[in-house]
Amino acid sequence: MAALRVSRTTLLRPVSSGARAPGFGVRLFSASAARTAASSLFPDEPAGPTVKTEIPGPVSKSYIDDLDEVFDIRSLHMLADYSKSIGNYIADPDGNVLLDVFAQIASIPLGYNNPGLIAASKTPEMVSAIVNRPALGNFPAYDWAATLRTGILKAAPPGLSQVFTAMTGSDANETAYKAAFMYRRQRERGGPQAAFTEEELSTAMSNTMPGSANDLSILSFKAAFHGRLFGSLSTTRSKPIHKLDIPAFDWPQATFPQLKYPLEDHVAENEAAERASLEEVEHLIQTFPRKPAAVVVEPIQSEGGDNHASPAFFRGLREVTARNDVLLIVDEVQTGVGATGRFWAHEHWGLSSPPDMVTFSKKAQAAGYYYADPALRPNLPYRQFNTWMGDPVRAVLFRAIYEQIQQHGLVAQAARVGDYLYAGLQRIAERYPDQVANLRGKDRGTFIAFDNPRRDEVLRRAKTLGVNLGGSGVSAVRLRPMLVFEERHADILLGVLEKIVAS
Amino acid sequence: MAALRVSRTTLLRPVSSGARAPGFGVRLFSASAARTAASSLFPDEPAGPTVKTEIPGPVSKSYIDDLDEVFDIRSLHMLADYSKSIGNYIADPDGNVLLDVFAQIASIPLGYNNPGLIAASKTPEMVSAIVNRPALGNFPAYDWAATLRTGILKAAPPGLSQVFTAMTGSDANETAYKAAFMYRRQRERGGPQAAFTEEELSTAMSNTMPGSANDLSILSFKAAFHGRLFGSLSTTRSKPIHKLDIPAFDWPQATFPQLKYPLEDHVAENEAAERASLEEVEHLIQTFPRKPAAVVVEPIQSEGGDNHASPAFFRGLREVTARNDVLLIVDEVQTGVGATGRFWAHEHWGLSSPPDMVTFSKKAQAAGYYYADPALRPNLPYRQFNTWMGDPVRAVLFRAIYEQIQQHGLVAQAARVGDYLYAGLQRIAERYPDQVANLRGKDRGTFIAFDNPRRDEVLRRAKTLGVNLGGSGVSAVRLRPMLVFEERHADILLGVLEKIVAS
Repeated sequence: MAALRVSRTTLLRPVSSGARAPGFGVRLFSASAARTAASSLFPDEPAGPTVKTEIPGPVSKSYIDDLDEVFDIRSLHMLADYSKSIGNYIADPDGNVLLDVFAQIASIPLGYNNPGLIAASKTPEMVSAIVNRPALGNFPAYDWAATLRTGILKAAPPGLSQVFTAMTGSDANETAYKAAFMYRRQRERGGPQAAFTEEELSTAMSNTMPGSANDLSILSFKAAFHGRLFGSLSTTRSKPIHKLDIPAFDWPQATFPQLKYPLEDHVAENEAAERASLEEVEHLIQTFPRKPAAVVVEPIQSEGGDNHASPAFFRGLREVTARNDVLLIVDEVQTGVGATGRFWAHEHWGLSSPPDMVTFSKKAQAAGYYYADPALRPNLPYRQFNTWMGDPVRAVLFRAIYEQIQQHGLVAQAARVGDYLYAGLQRIAERYPDQVANLRGKDRGTFIAFDNPRRDEVLRRAKTLGVNLGGSGVSAVRLRPMLVFEERHADILLGVLEKIVAS
Repeated sequence: MAALRVSRTTLLRPVSSGARAPGFGVRLFSASAARTAASSLFPDEPAGPTVKTEIPGPVSKSYIDDLDEVFDIRSLHMLADYSKSIGNYIADPDGNVLLDVFAQIASIPLGYNNPGLIAASKTPEMVSAIVNRPALGNFPAYDWAATLRTGILKAAPPGLSQVFTAMTGSDANETAYKAAFMYRRQRERGGPQAAFTEEELSTAMSNTMPGSANDLSILSFKAAFHGRLFGSLSTTRSKPIHKLDIPAFDWPQATFPQLKYPLEDHVAENEAAERASLEEVEHLIQTFPRKPAAVVVEPIQSEGGDNHASPAFFRGLREVTARNDVLLIVDEVQTGVGATGRFWAHEHWGLSSPPDMVTFSKKAQAAGYYYADPALRPNLPYRQFNTWMGDPVRAVLFRAIYEQIQQHGLVAQAARVGDYLYAGLQRIAERYPDQVANLRGKDRGTFIAFDNPRRDEVLRRAKTLGVNLGGSGVSAVRLRPMLVFEERHADILLGVLEKIVAS
């Protein structure tokens, strides 16, 4: 087949499964031909992408002009036609169908129009959850415990048996922070039985000390992303554009280890960077004027550039926080639910005791924080409370997601396909070391990234070649396939990436 | 019929529509017998409540014990069986069926198991919204503008043609606050073309000035409630229990006018209170060290005790904010969507120019803020952004809610039934002035409240008599019927209230 020319008439398909990249005439990497989840779940999934027009094409453009009148469209990547999207492929109104390895900022777990999730969405339970939305703290359905136990709690990280449900990742993190502040103050006050003082009761109403815990903080890491509401944004340190002009709390930030790649060539330096980071964390805990009630950390800094650290670093962080009596909150909003090859990324660390709280959202579709210690329930009702406290629609959906992940072994699949994808990228990196730099995510399933000096151009080109890719940080291409991503999809992705970096 | 004895075997039904309170043997108030929304939508709605057991009863208790193992149940009012709830009636697993005038903290718009909303929940569009949840800022569906225009925007307050969608009331308010801060700073900086300074870019990352707008604030009112995340909680001034131990921004609060009732007997005092409040607002705007970028206000302080102010006060607030170049955010999270007898409560005010932003959630099921000025879209993409930016499931539902409200004339109905309910309460208040004190909400649809010295006991007793009631503030009984609440339901409510206050 001739070299690909992208034009309004070029069709990339058909591509035979796993054997060839789309239209590049180059045999790439061998693929497992086993009949696996994506093929059984999505028999109509296309064999490869279709690019018919520039993106956005003429039809999309007219819709975008219209949308612009009522909605901010400046961050728009691509207008979608979800009725035509299927499995790993996202369609647009111009007839373009792209392999989607960005997946709605890592939040589509199991492919578009997944038949199992469609079935779950049509159940009387789901319909009731839509139309009879409860204030969960006041009027939960009698079977809410069962819904939790068969879904959100079945998926809970080892050792964490409790959940506070929320609506989004930001909300999950902020409610976790609130739990940490109340826990800390309650202990300082002398335990759950100790009453609030009159001064606390009155000063809380004017946002001042001692009623407002303005001498406490949450410690986060440089380049972290934990959300964009006022508390979570105060712990987010990803990019100025996320933070400019918004008031923020004077909370501390520690340096996240900046590992050098390939890891095996920088063992001593990386160990030193991790040691220095842990020392900085401990120093800040002990000296920062607003004492940290908790340290929050992502297993992989997913917006800040896919920055990794070793399991030893995180074990060290668990030790430092425990030793200094500070809570450890692991933000698994982006890393959770399988893509790293474990259901929760922190399961890679081999911790001797679990994190105090683990927050989740995105691929879970539901959101909230897991915890274990009953003392993290504040001493009085209505301290941790809001009207909806989550959404049963998404709790029911997460249960269906979890069931499908278990049924199809999709966490193991993410590990296997991730290894395959990583190996493929490694081969490209050997040929084009400047274009695929700092390859990272080995043994972390499909949660893989690399740096490219012309990253934004890579993302743009990828679309013209049929792949929807995302970036993070300054120069990272971040891969965020769904859990139904297989070797044959990896081949297409690898083919497109190789074509781009070779040009 | 003999006086009601509530026991495990007492059934309150049947009650003939509108004519009698349940089992009290006292003719109450005449009801419009017209075949209206609730009767046509809910032909199987019971004629009155059923109380079979104490609440919670034995079946509920066993479920509650189980739920307690995994979920904080200390704020639980009642366990619900939504499959058996219908229209204005909420059922529990013990067979109790209560007239619900609390409605999930004022968030159920059109009755349980509303057939029109059930139909909307089964459409392919809804199913797709559940399983193909987009990152709306990056990959909106091609028909997202149409979804907005036929739903959320069709319901927009007069003069506000734009929306930023969010997930909850807290989220809606916080994103509105962010818009206000960015708008203010952008103007101070010299307009949308003015670049950020290097110092702003770097200090934003460390949460310090000038990059973080720590010299700006949001001005709210004492007794206000605007949410429970860190920014919204800093503007919430309802109760200490909502705020204790959580760090808060040093933002200003003004006194909300404390009106005396009956209004006609306190005209001069109330006018003076409102004038003083406006003067305090203006003084704070001009002198508070952290300059307010916006004033946020509820049309009726709905958590803080159902505190009202006159249309003249709010017109004054519009003038004060405009004169001082400060934005006015009207928080219609609880007052919006019809219950006050106008679709948006601020439509009662006769403003000469609309609020700068109006936030919504609860009965809309969707959430967000409306606005008009294009300058409230920040100058660059990704400044106001998050992964989901709302939920199409709830946007589609709001459209169906809006259609049904229009089709059945439910805003006018809320006004009519509210007048009827208010008149009934006024008659009870005349007989028991200490028990039904400070009756408020005249001409505000069913958004009615009164004070009772033993409020919590009133709420408890009401349940035993078949009515689910809510409170707010220290001593208010707040009535929050759904929009399908009719005169015959009002009769039952009035009968129960009269029975309680007479005892």
